[in-house]
Amino acid sequence: MESTTSTLLEQVITPSDLLTHWQGHRGLTRRTIEAFPEEAFFNYSIGGMRTFADMVMELLGIAAPGIKEIATGEIQELIEKVDHGNKKAKILELWDKATDEINTYWAQIKPEQFQQNIKIFGQFEGTVWSSIFYFIDNEIHHRGQAYVYLRALGIEPPYFYER
Amino acid sequence: MESTTSTLLEQVITPSDLLTHWQGHRGLTRRTIEAFPEEAFFNYSIGGMRTFADMVMELLGIAAPGIKEIATGEIQELIEKVDHGNKKAKILELWDKATDEINTYWAQIKPEQFQQNIKIFGQFEGTVWSSIFYFIDNEIHHRGQAYVYLRALGIEPPYFYER
Repeated sequence: MESTTSTLLEQVITPSDLLTHWQGHRGLTRRTIEAFPEEAFFNYSIGGMRTFADMVMELLGIAAPGIKEIATGEIQELIEKVDHGNKKAKILELWDKATDEINTYWAQIKPEQFQQNIKIFGQFEGTVWSSIFYFIDNEIHHRGQAYVYLRALGIEPPYFYER
Repeated sequence: MESTTSTLLEQVITPSDLLTHWQGHRGLTRRTIEAFPEEAFFNYSIGGMRTFADMVMELLGIAAPGIKEIATGEIQELIEKVDHGNKKAKILELWDKATDEINTYWAQIKPEQFQQNIKIFGQFEGTVWSSIFYFIDNEIHHRGQAYVYLRALGIEPPYFYER
């Protein structure tokens, strides 16, 4: 018990806290999607960049499949397009489905896996932790870009610090 | 030794890896500052947002002082303005100074501190890890916004995945 306790106390961040941290970010990204007018979500962009819809499809392609691959060891295909019929409701439905899948597969990741090497989606070499941090950082990066789109559209984005 | 080894193997991320991860992000932010034309860095913005210079001053106000507070226990004042004379070179000099300070003070943080509670800058309640993650996430968020500024200016930003 002594050693288990000290392991927990000396963790920078526990697996459970990292999941909560990410799902907090994912909740904020969901509110950012909600803040967009339907049409602008699928059509608006600045400087030749992708629409926020396109970025969100990338995030959907990475998050749940990435965690499934880490949990199961089965290489997942990176699919950055979904059939959304230009409906935010469809994207939000897929977002919520991904939220559940992430929670389910996360519970199957063993604590000793985070430091192990992985070639995620059969392509990107790193550790399990660095892959997950990439998923989160990439989401923050694109959501930050969506904040500029919203401001340019005259819409106030959700508070960054509210999770 | 057994227990120390297993502690390290079961860490999601070690303190040393978290520092390297953050300094990798800070290197990317530095290259993003470099990519801006001098004048646009201090004057350009979209949708009534702050200039990237203003955002970078916020990042400078948070990073080194925040880590100093965590390492020493001395509450730091949150100062989000610096005397830059509209010179990117001055900002980059402060950035590099902060890089060294972060490395110096990071080495003084004890492993068991990350899970402890802190009121950073005497204002924001959280744990040490959640405060540090906020510093990093906030930097990624604002740098993502700077990418839109650069694209709108017709400038290609540095690759997000290069650290």
